[in-house]
Amino acid sequence: MPTYPLLNRQYLLAKRPTGIPGNEHFTWNEQAIESLKPGEILVENHYISLDPAMRGWMNAARSYIRPVEIGEVMRAGTVGKVIDSQDPAFSVGQYVQGNGGVQAYSVAQGKHLVKVSADLAPLPQFLGTLGMTGITAYFGLLDVGQPQTGETVLVSAAAGAVGSVVGQIAKIKGCRVVGIAGGPEKCAYLTDTLGFDAAIDYKDESLSLRSALKTTCPDGVDVYFDNVGGKMLDTVLTRIRMKARIVICGAISQYNENKYYGPANYMSLLVNRARMEGFVVFDYKDRYAEAVAQMAQWSQEGKLISREEIHEGLSNFPEALLRLFSGEKMGKLVLKV
Amino acid sequence: MPTYPLLNRQYLLAKRPTGIPGNEHFTWNEQAIESLKPGEILVENHYISLDPAMRGWMNAARSYIRPVEIGEVMRAGTVGKVIDSQDPAFSVGQYVQGNGGVQAYSVAQGKHLVKVSADLAPLPQFLGTLGMTGITAYFGLLDVGQPQTGETVLVSAAAGAVGSVVGQIAKIKGCRVVGIAGGPEKCAYLTDTLGFDAAIDYKDESLSLRSALKTTCPDGVDVYFDNVGGKMLDTVLTRIRMKARIVICGAISQYNENKYYGPANYMSLLVNRARMEGFVVFDYKDRYAEAVAQMAQWSQEGKLISREEIHEGLSNFPEALLRLFSGEKMGKLVLKV
Repeated sequence: MPTYPLLNRQYLLAKRPTGIPGNEHFTWNEQAIESLKPGEILVENHYISLDPAMRGWMNAARSYIRPVEIGEVMRAGTVGKVIDSQDPAFSVGQYVQGNGGVQAYSVAQGKHLVKVSADLAPLPQFLGTLGMTGITAYFGLLDVGQPQTGETVLVSAAAGAVGSVVGQIAKIKGCRVVGIAGGPEKCAYLTDTLGFDAAIDYKDESLSLRSALKTTCPDGVDVYFDNVGGKMLDTVLTRIRMKARIVICGAISQYNENKYYGPANYMSLLVNRARMEGFVVFDYKDRYAEAVAQMAQWSQEGKLISREEIHEGLSNFPEALLRLFSGEKMGKLVLKV
Repeated sequence: MPTYPLLNRQYLLAKRPTGIPGNEHFTWNEQAIESLKPGEILVENHYISLDPAMRGWMNAARSYIRPVEIGEVMRAGTVGKVIDSQDPAFSVGQYVQGNGGVQAYSVAQGKHLVKVSADLAPLPQFLGTLGMTGITAYFGLLDVGQPQTGETVLVSAAAGAVGSVVGQIAKIKGCRVVGIAGGPEKCAYLTDTLGFDAAIDYKDESLSLRSALKTTCPDGVDVYFDNVGGKMLDTVLTRIRMKARIVICGAISQYNENKYYGPANYMSLLVNRARMEGFVVFDYKDRYAEAVAQMAQWSQEGKLISREEIHEGLSNFPEALLRLFSGEKMGKLVLKV
């Protein structure tokens, strides 16, 4: 096969982690890029999305998507530029968003790419508010959570990529919004920059989550958008209102645990005639454009603030990935190739 | 105050149980019945409903209804006959269903009584299929579970009062129905008498629930109507289908436990875009008549079989109550005064 005069650089999954993933679970690989077949597009990846979901994809068990196989390029969302194309619908120089994986270049079919307008926003934002992260927040909150004006919306990992967007959309929809985050800096960011009504610092050992919820959500919680799981979910269950909706988006506290912590207070769902519901953003594929258009408008109107933490250098991927689990990062975690 | 020449006999709550309730948690009391005030009705209770929910009412914590106070007559559903009335809407000799409590006579306002037609069915049935038990099954399955023709409905405590009705309604609605019950006799009753498609004997140590679910629900579970909670719920979560609905009606396995068992597999709700939802039958008060009329019709058509286990003698209440938790009874547990 003829190849391009380019050397691809990539991280392959080397072995499956049992706890927190590290350098030892990946292999660095360099290889030539074969010439395109008809219908294929060659993309130079500029930014790689780092997401909690990646931890799940490293497990052997099939979840809502097949696992990454050992020896396969680590799966990741990407945004980049078309540098060659055998698909007339995509021309060289066009920016696209896709699942290019943790590598410098990727080859994709057109149906797996979404064109993005680099004039609309900086590229990393197409992995954040205008990408899968924002779309996840949008449909999870509005379609599953169905918040009504005046209701109290609580969100965990509220300074994170999805959580920060959820809270801002809930504010736009006229809700009272409370975020749970770790540390005073994040909490100040939620209330002072993003306009949350209150923030709970779960790392503050001087107060229990239960009492903090009583103070910040005195009438209880109508919608809980959960990214954390574990004991936090269990405690929130004791403070939900009648007909509450708990949106299960993730469980970052549990991904590296051997066994998940089950919410023992789930009978609160009965007492409060409430529901707990999971969703996967892929199911909304036909409506992605609606979400992106709405989020872009809110961004332009200054109602939706986007924040990315950008790490540089593809080779720093394993280290950057750790930031997802350390509880230190704010906003969307992105790797610049 | 003038009194009736009748001695009421009743069980008062004496202390709150921590585990299984027994004789020591109740006090037998005999007292005169005061003359009725305007608007009151005196009912001679003929049958008393024994329900798992009673265990929850004995706890100090407010649940979906206030607790029974120490020294108060133990709360219970009842069916009986009006023997005196200061409400023109109720005449002597009329049969009524209400919350008369564990006692021989009760005094109630008309708004808390429902007239029943003793010609329609034997009286105990108004505590079962044509009472709160049946109404609970009806709205829990149809409104919360929303089963569709051809779907697989799984029900736990399937030979119990609510479970046996849930399964029969699901069959009427064209579903494939699988019940979980304890012991070969109950399982045979489900398949041979009630027409369930399959039954799982959870007491059979030769097979795991997980493998039994694979065999009996090969395509997974669309609706799980849960009366049991605990590890059973956790295992079922591993076998739900996309968009499954888990109806939380009760958790009989947990009521006498110090701490509830939390379903660690709840993230299956995310993977399967499923929901877990609780309900309380009281919310359907305005639609009780609809349910009773439909269930009476199904009963007359022979599509809905009612079974009661009737114990005799008010003084046997504490002993009869134990049958709820022993896993031995079949159908609706009723005490004949």
